[in-house]
Amino acid sequence: MRIAIDAMGGDHAPKEIVLGTLKALEAFPNLHITLIGNEDKIKTYVSEQKRLSIIHANEIIEATDEPVRAVRRKKNASMVLMAKEVKEGRADACISAGNTGALMAAGLFIVGRIDGIDRPALAPTLPTADGRGFIMLDAGANVDAKAQHLLQYAIMGSIYAEKVRGVPSPRVGLLNIGTEKNKGNDLMKQVFPLLEKASLHFIGNVEARDLLEGVADVVITDGFTGNVTLKAIEGTAQSVFSMLKTTLTSNFKSKFAASVLKPQLLDLKAKMDYSEYGGAGLFGLKAPVIKAHGSSDANAIFNAIRQAKDIVDNNVTELIKKQVESDD
Amino acid sequence: MRIAIDAMGGDHAPKEIVLGTLKALEAFPNLHITLIGNEDKIKTYVSEQKRLSIIHANEIIEATDEPVRAVRRKKNASMVLMAKEVKEGRADACISAGNTGALMAAGLFIVGRIDGIDRPALAPTLPTADGRGFIMLDAGANVDAKAQHLLQYAIMGSIYAEKVRGVPSPRVGLLNIGTEKNKGNDLMKQVFPLLEKASLHFIGNVEARDLLEGVADVVITDGFTGNVTLKAIEGTAQSVFSMLKTTLTSNFKSKFAASVLKPQLLDLKAKMDYSEYGGAGLFGLKAPVIKAHGSSDANAIFNAIRQAKDIVDNNVTELIKKQVESDD
Repeated sequence: MRIAIDAMGGDHAPKEIVLGTLKALEAFPNLHITLIGNEDKIKTYVSEQKRLSIIHANEIIEATDEPVRAVRRKKNASMVLMAKEVKEGRADACISAGNTGALMAAGLFIVGRIDGIDRPALAPTLPTADGRGFIMLDAGANVDAKAQHLLQYAIMGSIYAEKVRGVPSPRVGLLNIGTEKNKGNDLMKQVFPLLEKASLHFIGNVEARDLLEGVADVVITDGFTGNVTLKAIEGTAQSVFSMLKTTLTSNFKSKFAASVLKPQLLDLKAKMDYSEYGGAGLFGLKAPVIKAHGSSDANAIFNAIRQAKDIVDNNVTELIKKQVESDD
Repeated sequence: MRIAIDAMGGDHAPKEIVLGTLKALEAFPNLHITLIGNEDKIKTYVSEQKRLSIIHANEIIEATDEPVRAVRRKKNASMVLMAKEVKEGRADACISAGNTGALMAAGLFIVGRIDGIDRPALAPTLPTADGRGFIMLDAGANVDAKAQHLLQYAIMGSIYAEKVRGVPSPRVGLLNIGTEKNKGNDLMKQVFPLLEKASLHFIGNVEARDLLEGVADVVITDGFTGNVTLKAIEGTAQSVFSMLKTTLTSNFKSKFAASVLKPQLLDLKAKMDYSEYGGAGLFGLKAPVIKAHGSSDANAIFNAIRQAKDIVDNNVTELIKKQVESDD
């Protein structure tokens, strides 16, 4: 198996990307990786290495670039060349920690959609109190979604949760403003009966306040609501932790007590750190495309590589294709 | 000034409702309160009291009741009689900790909309790290909103933040999936130019991850997104606190250290407790209608009473009316 990785994406590129790559090559003996980016810079962190190739790219898509335009114009950008490796069959999956919108555009225009999937969806795995996590889709690939799109998200998410995350008969919930059947806006009212009829373990509507308690394994929503929800969860957790830090270091006595609790507090922070679960998958494309978090360190990149490998190993793309065809 | 209060709404009714009422009567010498509910039960907690009247109601709208139907059919429910006190001019404002949907229905059908306001909005005040808080509207009164509705929310929220919360020139932000002008779904793209043109201190799009850091004083969104966001924030804060509790009591050493930190941790929890800011206002009605949190204790009820009083004292309803008329 070969995975193509954008070495220039994210806040800590290329160093942490390269270090994560090396860790993965050591862990997975059958894995080949192609790093795409500034060759000189990449070589600062790695010399000759078995099962590793480097493709030089002299352009970078910046975080501030307008996604679609950047993908179309910067033909030699590391992210664009990465997607081409997959498109042209030289890699089985690809990973970038760069501009999310640009990666979605590269996925859509270069890697391409699975026939029968109308819209790809961005599917991060979020933490839960019990450590099992859940996947939420769509987290922002498609902001004006139709009911049929959400049904497809549910099918894709369910296959992923079962095959890659090892959840038997994943519980699929529709993110809504109440648990009763008739709740929600027009879109959710249209989606509910579609999910009821589908061959899924649909558990009905779920509320945002229950997500981190693990109310569902797969949470279905439109890209606008999903993106806002994801950021509300991230932001609230961060704000609470930062308030906690301020509070606990406010005087000498509490500083001392807090120092005793440091291992537990770090442990809790790690529990909330969803890079442990890998990156966000872009589901519905002809090959796995993984968006690693912009702040990814070597460990987060390693987890994203393992995730991409698991998706390929478990034929997730093929299974989605078959399921969508059989539903037609 | 007279405020009508549903004595039977919420998890701790009527006891905490009565205790909060007594506290408010003591604090505000010009305040009259009418409690509506089961007279016998109310009288368990209060005997003769100046400036307090009781109206007996032999029905209750339950949390599980279908809102609109309950308001229409339970004509002697405490919440319905409460709204009638306002409608018929015997009270200046009303408060309930009961069924949110039913209160919105009672507000709309009994108290009535301000002429020119198309849809009322539910506007809770949420906590921020710096303790200033922000208001978000709509948090769920109107799930299929149009651009014009969101413009009206912004006008109402801005007036409230300035007059009641004392924020000079309140910063109005549109909740969106990115800060750039062209971001969002169709609705938000339509709303943005309307907010730009309005006489508001519009600061553009804001992201959910920055809300608790106080990025805006008034956050504008549709009722579906607002409700999900509110619950995502509440749920995440609760989950983090409960994980914190589990972590900190996991062994003897940490239990001891945690006991030293208890005052700080309680302080932090209080900071996140938005009942301190009062209840959620239902904006756009002919008189102030306040939804206190279902779990309200006496203190939360007291804060909701103070809030209702501040809204009346500052002529917020009149100001909204004038602003909407001048915009026509």
